[in-house]
Parts: sequence; structure tokens; C-alpha cells
Amino acid sequence: MVFEVIEKDLAGKIGELETRRGVIQTPALLPVVNPVKITIPPKEISEEYGFEALITNAYLIKKHFPVNVEVHHLLGFKGPIMTDSGAYQLLLYGDVEIAPEEVIWLQESMGSDIAVILDVPTGGEATRARAEETVRETLRRAEESLSLRSDPSILWVGPIQGGTYLDLLAYCARKIGSMDFHIHALGSPTQIMEQYDYPQLVDMIVTARLNLPLNRPLHLFGAGHPMILPLAVALGCDLFDSAAYAIFARDNRYMLPTRTVKIEHLHELPCSCPVCRKTTAEELKELPKEEREKLIARHNLYITAMEIRAIKQRIQEGTLWEYLEEKCRSHPLLYQAFKRLGKYTKYLEKFDPVTRGSPRGIFFFDETSLNRPEVERHLSRLEERYLPPPKEILLILPESPQKPLHQGPLYKAILASKLPKKLEKTLHVVFLSSAFGVIPEELDEVYPLSQHESCIEPTSKRSLQLMARGLLSIIKKHRYKATVLCSPRELLQLIEHSIPKPLLFIEWREAKSPNELAEEVVSALWSLVRQLEGQ
Amino acid sequence: MVFEVIEKDLAGKIGELETRRGVIQTPALLPVVNPVKITIPPKEISEEYGFEALITNAYLIKKHFPVNVEVHHLLGFKGPIMTDSGAYQLLLYGDVEIAPEEVIWLQESMGSDIAVILDVPTGGEATRARAEETVRETLRRAEESLSLRSDPSILWVGPIQGGTYLDLLAYCARKIGSMDFHIHALGSPTQIMEQYDYPQLVDMIVTARLNLPLNRPLHLFGAGHPMILPLAVALGCDLFDSAAYAIFARDNRYMLPTRTVKIEHLHELPCSCPVCRKTTAEELKELPKEEREKLIARHNLYITAMEIRAIKQRIQEGTLWEYLEEKCRSHPLLYQAFKRLGKYTKYLEKFDPVTRGSPRGIFFFDETSLNRPEVERHLSRLEERYLPPPKEILLILPESPQKPLHQGPLYKAILASKLPKKLEKTLHVVFLSSAFGVIPEELDEVYPLSQHESCIEPTSKRSLQLMARGLLSIIKKHRYKATVLCSPRELLQLIEHSIPKPLLFIEWREAKSPNELAEEVVSALWSLVRQLEGQ
Repeated sequence: MVFEVIEKDLAGKIGELETRRGVIQTPALLPVVNPVKITIPPKEISEEYGFEALITNAYLIKKHFPVNVEVHHLLGFKGPIMTDSGAYQLLLYGDVEIAPEEVIWLQESMGSDIAVILDVPTGGEATRARAEETVRETLRRAEESLSLRSDPSILWVGPIQGGTYLDLLAYCARKIGSMDFHIHALGSPTQIMEQYDYPQLVDMIVTARLNLPLNRPLHLFGAGHPMILPLAVALGCDLFDSAAYAIFARDNRYMLPTRTVKIEHLHELPCSCPVCRKTTAEELKELPKEEREKLIARHNLYITAMEIRAIKQRIQEGTLWEYLEEKCRSHPLLYQAFKRLGKYTKYLEKFDPVTRGSPRGIFFFDETSLNRPEVERHLSRLEERYLPPPKEILLILPESPQKPLHQGPLYKAILASKLPKKLEKTLHVVFLSSAFGVIPEELDEVYPLSQHESCIEPTSKRSLQLMARGLLSIIKKHRYKATVLCSPRELLQLIEHSIPKPLLFIEWREAKSPNELAEEVVSALWSLVRQLEGQ
Repeated sequence: MVFEVIEKDLAGKIGELETRRGVIQTPALLPVVNPVKITIPPKEISEEYGFEALITNAYLIKKHFPVNVEVHHLLGFKGPIMTDSGAYQLLLYGDVEIAPEEVIWLQESMGSDIAVILDVPTGGEATRARAEETVRETLRRAEESLSLRSDPSILWVGPIQGGTYLDLLAYCARKIGSMDFHIHALGSPTQIMEQYDYPQLVDMIVTARLNLPLNRPLHLFGAGHPMILPLAVALGCDLFDSAAYAIFARDNRYMLPTRTVKIEHLHELPCSCPVCRKTTAEELKELPKEEREKLIARHNLYITAMEIRAIKQRIQEGTLWEYLEEKCRSHPLLYQAFKRLGKYTKYLEKFDPVTRGSPRGIFFFDETSLNRPEVERHLSRLEERYLPPPKEILLILPESPQKPLHQGPLYKAILASKLPKKLEKTLHVVFLSSAFGVIPEELDEVYPLSQHESCIEPTSKRSLQLMARGLLSIIKKHRYKATVLCSPRELLQLIEHSIPKPLLFIEWREAKSPNELAEEVVSALWSLVRQLEGQ
């Protein structure tokens, strides 16, 4: 087994990728080392910042160094080295002076541990015809590469092309996923990311992941900024490479977990890394260019390494969604990408683990939080597995801030009111929930139905829709003789036609106290008893 | 001048507070040093983490040390020391064995640089009668303290009580603000914060700030967690104290910028501070209790110091609002507090600086972002200062993603369509904006009307309200002869009755291309010309 998953959260995972030079724990970012201009020595990259593997460029090595150079020797690094094929240069400069078969041989001979075939990047702006051509040619070269390889200890990466044409991307993923590769890589996102088109990126990652074998890690090319990493991991990416730490440093750009600041705009260094503890923003600005570049690159690497640890910690805890809620507020387009997850709730639910070591309370902030997999899971289980108890009257009560819900003041006040025993036995109480739609009383202590905090308005549009969806799935399965509905008027309007009659409605408003509501509910129940007895 | 403001953002500021032992730059957090149990030596607190001042407890010093002990000597710290009076102990234990006048003398004699009178904390759960009593007694002691002080070089803190009774808080602030104090402090938030009642805290801080003299810094007692600091600063707090770094460490709680993690739940250390770089989560868990406590306390101090620098950096940049957008996603109740700022947009607008050194693009994520002071400022200026040009036809166009708005494809297509010259001269174009309501074309390059990114839906309820508010303020000031409105139908419904007639409506929908819309607008304009000429 080349890749083993250790822990999961959303569609993200912590895994172990076995290479011939040791295990790489994922999610992993491989810093790009430019063999021609080394900003930070590879030894330092691994020992000081803890990166387990590097990536460099096979094409550049061929261009600038003698034939038969060994890449670990050249870079002075003993751990796993991935080499890129030069496809990115192809994208930038239109052509590279190297043949696909030469790239296979080249990477094998220089000792790459993880090697990439020379694919043809689609890019972010290709026409449909051009995109089809790049997919066709990439698949042809992938197929061809299988028979050209001679060293079975190398892990081979099969890149997926198709750009923003999701059907092409899906096709390419399915085809290349059926070939003998160890890792896949999503090509072409660089241009898309330069335009901050993160919503598009979400579509691309999910499309790729859905069409690839589950047991192969997915590499996302050129995505190295800490602001985007948590979302990419949550969607199913495992490997990243990044030259950003060095390129940004050259350009005087200081990375932070959610953004980049030009150093002329820095007044404070809001970081505790060794670089930032030994200098101030003012001192940094006054350093000679080259010295400053090295310091910023180092700081950028600390920030990047820290981000990977933060993501792993979140996966271990099962709080990756909460992390996205924070992180995706760093740019409106990243937030739009986060909202796009609404298209993929079933996808996330499929991958997200149902149980966890130490379950934690989960947070709901606004309607976007309703895209959490726990919500879809709860509602689809209500639809598919739930059987209501054989009771006659459906009593629908509003949510209370107390959890579990049956300990809320309204329900307690109703129970305290001495309903006829006969009635009590035949009541089925279902609580409304701004987060989960509805929660039948028998389930209200099941995780996470009581272990959550929500500040979503109970009258928000999406919450009302979830309530309606949940209620409909319950009443479809059992013939209640009557309904008492205590809710905002908006919910009545949504479900009036489908709910079992007779229906008694008590309007919930924020200003009404639990005792007032209880009185109204109890009097409705009594009148219902009389009505049913009269039948 | 004891306190000088250097830079502002929202109601937050960077300031310099002059004490007899040197300047404290604000916002500043003063780590609490327990004179009886010192976790981290004061010298280290200042030299390693950069805290310029400390706070300790005068009452505890009196209880455990000989009379006449000098506090700088006792703690081994030469910088400014603030002493608390023991009021918090009073709140906890009901009574302290010390008289108010003794506390004045005590702090003077031990050499405090910043001293606090012995106020009577209201606490979070006091009855109205009890709250009134605490305010009365606090004010009496404050008044009395004025004549008891003998050393004019000490800065005296006048605490504000009243708890959650905002009228009492306001009264107390006005009264004590008129007395000779240098600093004020908001009392009693500890219990409120233990219950995470951050929305209440927002009300309390704003109430205090609105009723205090502007040139006196405001101290917020007991609020030391990095997750709450940015919001408190943005609302107008300048000084903080915190024992949390040490208390949390004792309890094995590891602070992060937006939360706290129990160390048994730590798998990674997502931090680059010297503590976290030298150890791993596993090693930390296995250390002897006392050693671990010291390491966690150190880490907690690095995180706290980093947060203060991050806040200062944001104020310098003018991006404190963007910072709140991220930070207030760490807990639903903190998010509710952030939403509460909607009550205080005029307050924020009043304090927020209009111009800045290097203006930056601002971000709008959702309806909560519309509480930004820039929105209120723009709309109230439209209402109070704006004069529409003397043109006859009001043409209202939807927003385009391009900025400035007059370079959007719809407007360009309309201009390219060869309208009659006469008509062109008499058109007044006003753009709709999901962020700013409306933007008249003459203003569309004024900062920040073109320098923003918004992903708010143009049909969101609050955006529509802002559009209506902006349009009404324009049509009130000028008699247009006709209107062409190209907008979502929801806006038409909101303003139909008030808009100048004849009114031609073109429905904007996301699916329509700019060219389609332009054609409809142009044909509406032609028909309008014929209609007006017919008159």
C-alpha cells in the first residue's frame, strides 16, 4: 500500500505516502527548490521547518547541469524529492526543448523519488477545442509512459488536464485513474488562482476527486498560500508544492496565515517565528535587498509549515469546518468558494467520518454553515432510515437554547401542565432546529444534535427550508391524526398543505415567553382532545 | 497630555500613555503577575515578549509582604506597574479586609505607577437595586479618593460600574468622567465573559466609551484572550490585563489566536514560537506538570503578544474591520457580538478616520459587512451633503464587477448605442451597489466606492434597503422628469411609489447579458424621448 489514510475530516485526510526514501505524512507541502537559484538550503528546509520532501524541476536541471547529475546529490538533501517535468514551463513559454519520453528517462536517471510525466497543461483560458487536444495528448503520453518506465521503485504522477471544462476534467481523471499511477495531480490551477477564481477551483478539485481512485493522493499544482490550503485539503487534496515562499520574498511580500502584506505596509511583525522575534518591521525594511529576501523567505516558510500543522490539528480534532469558517473570510472570492460547498454537501457527507474519538460541539454561524456534512447526514437519515413511533398527534415545538432540547423551558412547562395521561402517551414531539431542520425527541441526545451552538435566525430562509424538508420526511412515513404546530408563521406557510389535519397553529415570536407559549400549546392540545373525542 | 492618539481605525486606536516610568504604547495588555506565585519572571515578560507594563495586586501584596515593600523591587521590574485594588477579590469573596482610603495610601506607598481605587464591582448577576448601590458607592469612593491622593505623578484609574444596566453604566461613566482621573476601567466583565456573553459586552463597552471623555484610555478588566481582543479594541478599549496565560497553563490549556485547546487534544503545535519549535505535542504531554505549566504559560504569552502586534498592524493599515470578519468566526456568540455592531454603525462612523495614508480596497462578505462605517458614511453624506446635477432623466443601472462602475460593460454598451445628444446630456446615471446602496456616476471614483470587492448578493434584503435609502435621498433633492430603472424586481417593489414618473422598468436578472440589458435600456430611453417630446 503506497498511501494509507490515518484520519479524516470532511473530504480531507491525514495520510502516509510511502516513497523509497521514507514516508511523507500528508497533507504535505513540498517547497520548490530552484536548482539554479537556491534561496534557502534544502537541508535547512527539512531540518528547521520540518518539511519532509522537496520538489524541483527536471527540465531546469537538464538545461543547466551535466547529464547524469543525481538530484539528491545536487540539492544536498537525502529525503524524498519530487521532480516536475517542465510542463509548467511549457504552459508559460509555449514549448520546451524536450520530448515526453526523454522526460521519463531523465527523471529516472537523476534519481527522482516522485516523477511527473510531461503532460500538456490546458491553462485557464483555453478554448474547448484546445482543451480537448490537451486532454487527448496528456492521456496519450500517460499511456505511453507506462511502457517507458524501467524503475518500479519510483512513484509516478498522472496529471489531470481539462482546465475549467469539468466534463473534460472528469473524463481525463477517469481515464488516467484507470492507468497504473501512484499519485494524481490537478494541472493548470495557477492561472485560475492568480485571478483568485477560487469558486472555479472548488469545482475542479471536486470533479477530479470524484473521478479518481480513492486510494491515490491528489496533488494540487502551484497552490502554496496558507490562505487557500485548508479549503483545498478539505476538498480532498493531499499534496501541494509551492515556490511562493521564495517568489514572494523576492518581491518583498510577507506571508500571513490569511493574506500577504507588502513589507512597506508592515508596521509590526505579527508572528512569533525566529525571524520575526529577532527583528522589527522597521529593521527589516532597512536591510540590504538580498539579506531581507532571505529573511522573508524564512519567515514565509515558517508560516507555511505552521499552516500545515494547523490543518492536521483540525483534522485530528474534527474541526476542519470551523477552521474554514474563519479562514474563508480572508477574501470575498475565497468566501464565495466556501459558499460553493453548498453544491457539494452530499460529496462532503460521503467522505466525512460519522464517528470520532472525542466528539466536540459544532458551531453554526449563518446559512453557509448549513452546508456542513452533519446537516445533510441528519436529514438524509431521517429520510432513509428513520421510523417515527406509533403515536397519533404530532407536536412541533420551536428550538430552545438549552440542550438537549427536551430540557428546554417550553417543553418542561407543557409537561408540567398535567395533560390527560392518554394524550401524553400519544404525543410525538418534534423540535425545530435552525441548524438541523428538525430533531425528533427520541433523537435529541444523539451526537451532534445536542452538541452544537447555533446563532442562525430561526426564520432564515434556508433554516425554514430544512425544517420543511425534515417535517415532510417524517409525515410521509406515519399517519398522524392531528398536528399542533408552534413555529414562526413563515414555516406554516411552507408546509400548510402537506401537514396532517386537523392542524392547530400557535405563532412563535421572539417576544413571547416560554410560559405564554406553553399555555397556548396546552390549550390547543385540550381543544384537540375534545375535537378527536367528538369524532 | 497623558494620552496621545497616534492612529485610528473604527473606534480603535494606537496611542501613547505617558507614565512616570516611561511610555506605554496602546493597545496594551498588562500581564498579571501574582506576587505570591510568579509563573514567568517579570523581567522575562518584558524582555522576551515585549510587554511594556505589568499589573499586580495591591491587596495581595499587603496581605503577604511586609509594610513598605516597593512593588518594582518586589517584582524585579523597572517599567510601569499598575496595581489593582482588590476589587476583584471583593467580587469573588464578598469582602476584603481593607478600607478604601487604605487602598489609596497603600498603592502610593508601594510605588504603583498606575493605581486603581477600591470600587465596588456590580458583577454580571446583580439586581437593579444592588447595581444602583454599587454605582453609588463606587462614585462616592471615587470622589473621596480625589482628596486622599498625595502623589501627583501616579496615574489614577476610575472604574465604571453598573454591570449590564446600561443606563447605570452610562450615568457612572459620565459622573466619574467628570472627576480628575487619567484612565477609566470597565468593571465586572469577567462573569459576563465566562458565559461568553459577548453581545452584552459590546453594549457595555460602547455605553462606557460614549459617556467618557475622549482623551482618556479605557481599560477592560479581565479580558485577556486573543480571540476577544480585536473586537474590544475596535470598540474603543485601550488597555487590558490578563492572568489567562498563567491560569490556562495551570489548567493545561494551550491558547491559539482564536481559541483554546486542552493539551490532551493537541496533536500538532500550530505555532512558531520558541516553545513550540523546540517541542512536539507528544513531548509536551509527557513533561512533568510544573515544567509543562511553565512552557504553556510561555507559549500563551507569545500568542498574546503576537495578537497585540496583529491588532496594531491592522489599525495602521486600516483593515481592522477585515480582521474582525475573520476573528469573530471563532465562536457563534462572538459572531453575534460582531453582528451587534449593526446597532452602533453611527458610533463607529464617528470615530473611524475618513482618510488614510495608503487607502486599500475594502471587503464585503455578507450582510454583516454592511455595518462597516464606510457604508453609513457614504449614505449619510448622500443625505446631508450631496447635490444631484441638474439633469432631467434618472437612469438607474445595476452594479458591474468592473470598477470604476462607469467602465462596466452595460454602461459602455449604452453609450455606444448612439443616443440622441440631447438625451445624453440630460441623463443622470446612478449605479446600484450591493455594498454602498447607490453610487452616482460623478462619485464613482471617490474612495472607497471603486476600491472594494463585494460578494453580497444584489438581491439580499439589507442591500436592497440600502439601495432604496440611497435612491430616496437623491430623488428628494432634485425633480427628475422621468426614471429608467434597471434592477432586480425586488427593488422596484420597494421604491415604486416614491420614484419620479414616468417610470420605465427593465428587470435585471443574472442570466441576462450586459448587451441584452443595454438593448432594453436604450429602447426604453428612446420611448421616453418620444413620450417627453409628445408632452
